[in-house]
Amino acid sequence: MNIEQFTKRLDALKFGDMFENDFLLTWEKTDDEIDAVFTVADALRELRENNVSAKIFDSGLAVSLFRDNSTRTRFSFGSAANLLGLALQDLDEGKSQIAHGETVRETANMISFMADVIGIRDDMYIGKGNTYMREVAQSVEQGYKNGVLEQRPTLVNLQCDIDHPTQSMADMLHIIHHFGGVENLKGKKIAMTWAYSPSYGKPLSVPQGVVGLMSRFGMDVSLAHPEGYEIMSDVEKVAAANAAKNGTKFVKTNSMAEAFKDADIVYPKSWAPYAAMEKRTVLYGNGDNDGIKALEKELLTQNAKHKDWECTEEMMKLTKGGKALYMHCLPADITGVSCEQGEVCASVFDRYREPLYKEAGYKPYIIAAMMFLAKCKDPSKILAELAKSAKPRFLK
Amino acid sequence: MNIEQFTKRLDALKFGDMFENDFLLTWEKTDDEIDAVFTVADALRELRENNVSAKIFDSGLAVSLFRDNSTRTRFSFGSAANLLGLALQDLDEGKSQIAHGETVRETANMISFMADVIGIRDDMYIGKGNTYMREVAQSVEQGYKNGVLEQRPTLVNLQCDIDHPTQSMADMLHIIHHFGGVENLKGKKIAMTWAYSPSYGKPLSVPQGVVGLMSRFGMDVSLAHPEGYEIMSDVEKVAAANAAKNGTKFVKTNSMAEAFKDADIVYPKSWAPYAAMEKRTVLYGNGDNDGIKALEKELLTQNAKHKDWECTEEMMKLTKGGKALYMHCLPADITGVSCEQGEVCASVFDRYREPLYKEAGYKPYIIAAMMFLAKCKDPSKILAELAKSAKPRFLK
Amino acid sequence: MNIEQFTKRLDALKFGDMFENDFLLTWEKTDDEIDAVFTVADALRELRENNVSAKIFDSGLAVSLFRDNSTRTRFSFGSAANLLGLALQDLDEGKSQIAHGETVRETANMISFMADVIGIRDDMYIGKGNTYMREVAQSVEQGYKNGVLEQRPTLVNLQCDIDHPTQSMADMLHIIHHFGGVENLKGKKIAMTWAYSPSYGKPLSVPQGVVGLMSRFGMDVSLAHPEGYEIMSDVEKVAAANAAKNGTKFVKTNSMAEAFKDADIVYPKSWAPYAAMEKRTVLYGNGDNDGIKALEKELLTQNAKHKDWECTEEMMKLTKGGKALYMHCLPADITGVSCEQGEVCASVFDRYREPLYKEAGYKPYIIAAMMFLAKCKDPSKILAELAKSAKPRFLK
Repeated sequence: MNIEQFTKRLDALKFGDMFENDFLLTWEKTDDEIDAVFTVADALRELRENNVSAKIFDSGLAVSLFRDNSTRTRFSFGSAANLLGLALQDLDEGKSQIAHGETVRETANMISFMADVIGIRDDMYIGKGNTYMREVAQSVEQGYKNGVLEQRPTLVNLQCDIDHPTQSMADMLHIIHHFGGVENLKGKKIAMTWAYSPSYGKPLSVPQGVVGLMSRFGMDVSLAHPEGYEIMSDVEKVAAANAAKNGTKFVKTNSMAEAFKDADIVYPKSWAPYAAMEKRTVLYGNGDNDGIKALEKELLTQNAKHKDWECTEEMMKLTKGGKALYMHCLPADITGVSCEQGEVCASVFDRYREPLYKEAGYKPYIIAAMMFLAKCKDPSKILAELAKSAKPRFLK
Repeated sequence: MNIEQFTKRLDALKFGDMFENDFLLTWEKTDDEIDAVFTVADALRELRENNVSAKIFDSGLAVSLFRDNSTRTRFSFGSAANLLGLALQDLDEGKSQIAHGETVRETANMISFMADVIGIRDDMYIGKGNTYMREVAQSVEQGYKNGVLEQRPTLVNLQCDIDHPTQSMADMLHIIHHFGGVENLKGKKIAMTWAYSPSYGKPLSVPQGVVGLMSRFGMDVSLAHPEGYEIMSDVEKVAAANAAKNGTKFVKTNSMAEAFKDADIVYPKSWAPYAAMEKRTVLYGNGDNDGIKALEKELLTQNAKHKDWECTEEMMKLTKGGKALYMHCLPADITGVSCEQGEVCASVFDRYREPLYKEAGYKPYIIAAMMFLAKCKDPSKILAELAKSAKPRFLK
Repeated sequence: MNIEQFTKRLDALKFGDMFENDFLLTWEKTDDEIDAVFTVADALRELRENNVSAKIFDSGLAVSLFRDNSTRTRFSFGSAANLLGLALQDLDEGKSQIAHGETVRETANMISFMADVIGIRDDMYIGKGNTYMREVAQSVEQGYKNGVLEQRPTLVNLQCDIDHPTQSMADMLHIIHHFGGVENLKGKKIAMTWAYSPSYGKPLSVPQGVVGLMSRFGMDVSLAHPEGYEIMSDVEKVAAANAAKNGTKFVKTNSMAEAFKDADIVYPKSWAPYAAMEKRTVLYGNGDNDGIKALEKELLTQNAKHKDWECTEEMMKLTKGGKALYMHCLPADITGVSCEQGEVCASVFDRYREPLYKEAGYKPYIIAAMMFLAKCKDPSKILAELAKSAKPRFLK
């Protein structure tokens, strides 16, 4: 086991602002802070792989609130909490006595008396999820300052309407390790492209999170989608600014082939048009069920025009040496497996199954690192202590 | 950190009967036992605030059964269990194979093989909840004596039809600290008053728990409600007996203003008339849905006649210096916030938001103290040991 | 405390194949392996009864997936996980984002990044449950070998369409202790008999598990049921082969009285005919609701012809000295208690209530032992270490 490589790297970074802070959008974090998350994630994995306990909590709760279904992120959050010693407590709004009109401020404080971390997924409605997370974060900040809470629970964004930072960070760490280090990414090309799915209304947070983050690492980023499937323009600006700063390219195109051309990495995935999602949010707000049904029908019809946006073997051949790294946040819509026609053909998906699973496997460590950096004043010192005491994770 | 102040206080109290016993009604406990709960609650908070682990369990389960919705109490129970080292295991009767007609005795034993604590909320039906809890307690007592169970799980009442002891005890500890000690409560006046809510059928256990407990601390207690909103007469007798014993007053009135007059503490809260709740229990028992609907309509109409029972600024002006401590178990029905008209006006609620949240913050410690006193033979010694070993709650 | 008796017994057994393996069917395990489970179960109980921690995990998850309702097994699995230091994480397929068509292989890996154990109940459809478990086990085996998973999660069968090993093993350990050791079982007779229940479609895995396991311990096994209530023929073959090997009897009969005659142990319990369950599985597969309703009606009518298959006092008188040990996996259908007429009369059930509860009490230890043997390379050494370090389970 070699923890020193990580503590040394940490010691060279500035990330003091992460202490007792939240993780809501990757582009609110400095390069050093992003690097610190990757470093701690790798360090925690090093500990676990060497059967060394990473428990920094003797007691404490990690509260989760999932306003949308989740398997991968739910288990990743639970795993991260457990790795650090926190017990998971899920806030099931259906079983809770959250009064009609109860303020976010009140609920946030009521669940936080012994909470060290709060993880929230709220990705259904444009303009809502991230706003809600900020309201929760501000509420517990205030509660902490007023002496209502004895500790400041850290908020981790488990997917909102804007970003999906635990996903994009796990994806990025996968890329870094796949290519043998950030230094090898210079000049590489990643294609974040739309892909056809028979379902509609998939969140925009994944493509947004990916272009917002991946544009920071020296790679050229191509964002491809059919006309009408634009993502949030604010995030495009983030990506463009990153590219400008780094002297790399951020290109938008309406051709999947163009994006795949010579790409080192491809991330073909369905999402809903931003404008349609804004419309849907209004319709839900008005309780306009007929309007929602009409919109759904319209979206499915629109989707169906783009069935050729599939990651086929032919498409893959366009990539660098025909061997781009295929990525997906999973579950994917696989043609002939999970649907008649979908985002990716079965043979491509099968060939990349192992790396795809490994990609997903970074998420528990990324989340644990976000928690770790928010809770420990001196993460480097704590990592060194954990390594030194070398308490076994289990008595093999 | 100063734990000695608490261990000394404990050493002066008699509470041996709490060991391997349950906590069902506050008025079944002696003054010393009530004091012991407060003392241990404060001691556990002292430990946690000083980052000292209060884990007395290395493994073990805290089983919860919520037959009614809950956020605050659910999280408080989970927090208390976690603080002491127990894992929460919720008994979801919907997902359980509890056979039609399966006896309470059987279920109680089946969930208790490794349970150290059982917490139950069962507050919907008059004559049912507390009875059910006693049946569970007797079942596990018998199971323990017969060698079926290796330990005697402690039952904690998380709200029944009669009392809500974890609420009233948290409320009381808040009062004690707010006024700087029990010794300062002599001659103080607390007003437990009904208040209007657009919903109906709120449990009686809060007002009953409050008058049954608060009448023990040298305070005069006023119980105010419109005619027809009587609480359980047995609990009124408890309060009257407490007052007689202490030379204080227990006054019933049908005037909110009279109760508020010169009060040091006000607790305005909606509840359903006891007689109506008894009626409802019979209707549910008979599966008489039409009868239930008719009763609900009747209750809402009756409620609506008392919209003037609101904790307004004018009402607050009647209290001692206009500055009584406003209390509520939360969530409150706030006029113009959570409903058109409710229990309290927004400005009063806002002014007391911070103390209200602190009031709620005592509950995890109260529950943990109830568990602690039921499980530890010598709580004072264990507290001293925890303080001495000073294991960090988390590696900051 | 005497742990040496268990470590010595373990040292005389061969069970190396259990390490990093699964527990799916008892008849896939050697006699030594079965013995090792009983030995470790007893050892873990010895530790816990002496307030010694059996925590071998500092962190880690035990994932549960219940595709059918459960109280007893759910709590047993949770208790076992907690005893060894694992946190329970339930996979609620309703709240999960398991895509239509998502492969078992994918889900299995996604939930297993930090999972040490996976427990599954999937007992509804013939030919499905056990197959599903094997698919999960193979998936995580592959994930482990490919470096996707850092540890090999162990699969524990919490009831499938074929076997219910945690039940039959708990039942068997109860028998062993009741009769004072395996050596006293030679020549004893156990009657696994069908019994009438007003419900239908109860799983076959209990009778199958019982005859498949109990036939290994020197006892004569009688399997009794009305014509048409045959169990899976493959399992009958297992029982017959066991009997042949041991020189004991495996007898099938259509007379409850014949089975009860001179029996030392009786296990009267309702189950559905295997052929009907096969038919039902096909109907479900076809979504044939009318067919299912018709089948249910047919089964209830068929059941009703056999109301005389009840474990009455008269029936019990036929057993050895009238004092056979009555067993049941619970909950039982008790005549006049949980139904008008059922599997057992109230007086018999009441007389055996205490042993029945004790029987159930073995399950947490059996499951914990299965986990222990799959995770520890040298279980005997680890048990000795736990006993030596003697960390208290709780600070009494």
